[in-house]
Amino acid sequence: MELRTMILGHFLVVSLALNAGLLYRDYYNGKHKSQDVFSFNNECKNASLVTKRDAHVAKRAFLETNKAPSSKALSEIINLDHGDPTMYERYWQQMGDKTTVVIPGWKFISYFSDVRNLCWFLEPEFANAVIRLHKLVGNAVTEKPLYCGRTGSTQLFQAVLYAVSPPNASEPISVVSAAPFYSSYPLITEFLKSGLYKWAGDAHKFKKDQPYIELVTSPNNPDGLSREAVVNQNEGILIHDLAYYWPQYTSISSSPADHDIMLFTVSKSTGHAGTRLGWALVKDQEIAKKMTEFIVLSTIGVSKESQLRAAKILQVLSDTHEQKAHFRENEPFFDHSYNLMAKRWKQLRDAVRNSKLFSLPEFAHGKCAFSGRTFASQPAFAWLKCEGETEDCESFLRDHKILTRSGKHFGESTKYVRISVLPRDEVFDQFTERLSSITST
Amino acid sequence: MELRTMILGHFLVVSLALNAGLLYRDYYNGKHKSQDVFSFNNECKNASLVTKRDAHVAKRAFLETNKAPSSKALSEIINLDHGDPTMYERYWQQMGDKTTVVIPGWKFISYFSDVRNLCWFLEPEFANAVIRLHKLVGNAVTEKPLYCGRTGSTQLFQAVLYAVSPPNASEPISVVSAAPFYSSYPLITEFLKSGLYKWAGDAHKFKKDQPYIELVTSPNNPDGLSREAVVNQNEGILIHDLAYYWPQYTSISSSPADHDIMLFTVSKSTGHAGTRLGWALVKDQEIAKKMTEFIVLSTIGVSKESQLRAAKILQVLSDTHEQKAHFRENEPFFDHSYNLMAKRWKQLRDAVRNSKLFSLPEFAHGKCAFSGRTFASQPAFAWLKCEGETEDCESFLRDHKILTRSGKHFGESTKYVRISVLPRDEVFDQFTERLSSITST
Repeated sequence: MELRTMILGHFLVVSLALNAGLLYRDYYNGKHKSQDVFSFNNECKNASLVTKRDAHVAKRAFLETNKAPSSKALSEIINLDHGDPTMYERYWQQMGDKTTVVIPGWKFISYFSDVRNLCWFLEPEFANAVIRLHKLVGNAVTEKPLYCGRTGSTQLFQAVLYAVSPPNASEPISVVSAAPFYSSYPLITEFLKSGLYKWAGDAHKFKKDQPYIELVTSPNNPDGLSREAVVNQNEGILIHDLAYYWPQYTSISSSPADHDIMLFTVSKSTGHAGTRLGWALVKDQEIAKKMTEFIVLSTIGVSKESQLRAAKILQVLSDTHEQKAHFRENEPFFDHSYNLMAKRWKQLRDAVRNSKLFSLPEFAHGKCAFSGRTFASQPAFAWLKCEGETEDCESFLRDHKILTRSGKHFGESTKYVRISVLPRDEVFDQFTERLSSITST
Repeated sequence: MELRTMILGHFLVVSLALNAGLLYRDYYNGKHKSQDVFSFNNECKNASLVTKRDAHVAKRAFLETNKAPSSKALSEIINLDHGDPTMYERYWQQMGDKTTVVIPGWKFISYFSDVRNLCWFLEPEFANAVIRLHKLVGNAVTEKPLYCGRTGSTQLFQAVLYAVSPPNASEPISVVSAAPFYSSYPLITEFLKSGLYKWAGDAHKFKKDQPYIELVTSPNNPDGLSREAVVNQNEGILIHDLAYYWPQYTSISSSPADHDIMLFTVSKSTGHAGTRLGWALVKDQEIAKKMTEFIVLSTIGVSKESQLRAAKILQVLSDTHEQKAHFRENEPFFDHSYNLMAKRWKQLRDAVRNSKLFSLPEFAHGKCAFSGRTFASQPAFAWLKCEGETEDCESFLRDHKILTRSGKHFGESTKYVRISVLPRDEVFDQFTERLSSITST
């Protein structure tokens, strides 16, 4: 039955996940020396990556900020540059062994998961868990007189670019996204100097009368706003990145999203970034086929272990809402994570109010069709602006040992920074405490 | 200690694995209708993939040939086109729960595995298991006054191309490999129309006096021969794909391989193709860095679940040799798999002798420094030639319901086909029985 649903549903394309923080930085020996493990060159002109790093230094940075560090360590640096979703660790820990997976050594030897499906490397268990979750939340249409494929979300994004780019065009198709856009888009689009597609920058400035691909991230990374396409031309192909369209971050609309190509990832829904798994819901069979080709050519499918574990976690997540009697000691996942995000955004807005040097976006209230709650978005990232005369907000915060990602990487002013709202509790508390205490430039 | 070894050792770059069979075909309704799920266009001119398929047909094909099918089903089609290493399933099944991995739901939330290392997404446990295995087998140098990185093997191959290609050259660097070469090389090199590198075909024919990348696969896929570089110029960059350099397939030399860039994969060493995991040993730190960049940009790291499971399997594999007392009921892995390959190649050569219509390559005997045995190679693929007047060996075998991959995809004559020697026992027995019975064109 489930398989039929899938074959009648969208193409479901599964792959490895998008929307990570690529940068992490550090202080060394108490000096204000910034270390970019992966730093973007300033203008993203050719998307080349510059690595200026020292593994030992990076190690210190990471251990200090992410391993439930001592208060001494915390007093040194707080790294909120990348969007590592360690906030979710505690919830899954409290779940005990309910989400534990056991994989015998002789399983998953084969390349093939399910040859009944166009994307033969998709585990049916994972596909079913994804469809069940979308039905529960109501955030995306999964049933239509269409099809069901699969692959995996940085990789998914590339797979979509490959699938929708005209194969024999005289010049590469333009890829645009409205600024501020996810900082990895230009890099991923440009790094192989593909003849199929090229990065063409801010969608607001795209005026050419020619085919284009527009990336619509909603809620948006970095600023958390809900978005629609901005280039309004006939020849556009739209890719909707809905990685953050989950009820802990924003209200779910009464009508499920129903776009041609929709991308999702485990990283930002359940928090399992290490699993590197995403999925796409694709209406057009030919696009799903070409995405599958891409995944086959680039990685010959997707790790079975990841899919199996993600399936388990998504199943239990749905169970916490649908079988509450079995989870007396565990709050339903989206209730828990909604409450945690609400608490964090309150803390953050209080800190900004105390400091008086910063501002945050304001979000309109919306009624969530999933939870029935009416609330303003509480995004995974905070798009913080340095008010007044501070022009380089990232440097300013770095001077206070808070590592963030500058607005310039998102096609915006350096007065902005993106800050992860998803670290472990201790780190977030320390961060808001410190931000609150910054009261003069 | 192990970590220090790694930091002093080669860069170890881990990724998703190379060397799969991309094609599978089928018969439909008893008619000889070939269905390519992923078919290469004949000349690989532009490496575009043509998908002419029907999921239901493909399903039948796969189920019939791979799911321990009934003798009736076997009498229909035998699919040995792709190199799915299901032969290994039985060994790991007999191992019982010794290789079972248990992963709690709260583990591996973070993107990061080990920030002490240049390639922060490498699980130290996996890296240590890889190094231990290479030391046991003696097939590659892992200790040198060098470094240790990590990423994952289709992906690894692309990561290496990205890492060694000059970023600002006026034209793409040429990528060559001696024919017959692995059929995916031209496709993977060309499919994104990269401005960094381009496929330039058979290395024997490369005469240009300009920089180039030569892919050296040894033992070679498809023909199983040991290889060295053939283009002998100054400006060449060599990539050694050693996916099949394991003691079940060929004798291990007394001096471990010590090339600048060496690629390996779990798929063909232990048989865990579904895990999609490979690794690279890289001497040059800058190359390892750029490979890491590639993996970060294309998939933001590698599945933690895959690494954890592969670590467990590699550890137990080494244990079966080093702690034989604990494995009384289980033969050491490489002894078991050597014996199985020896049996299969004897069976295959007997069948070819009976039929009189085919020939196989002959391999010189060599003494294996690992096992002490003196033997001729017994590769994972058979490079079968149709003797006499049969020009299209793949079609000829297809008429006998044996699906193989034509020599044309490997830059060679259609008189050759590549046949997987790694299916389940039942399928291989049925195959040799049928081949043996083909005695007239």
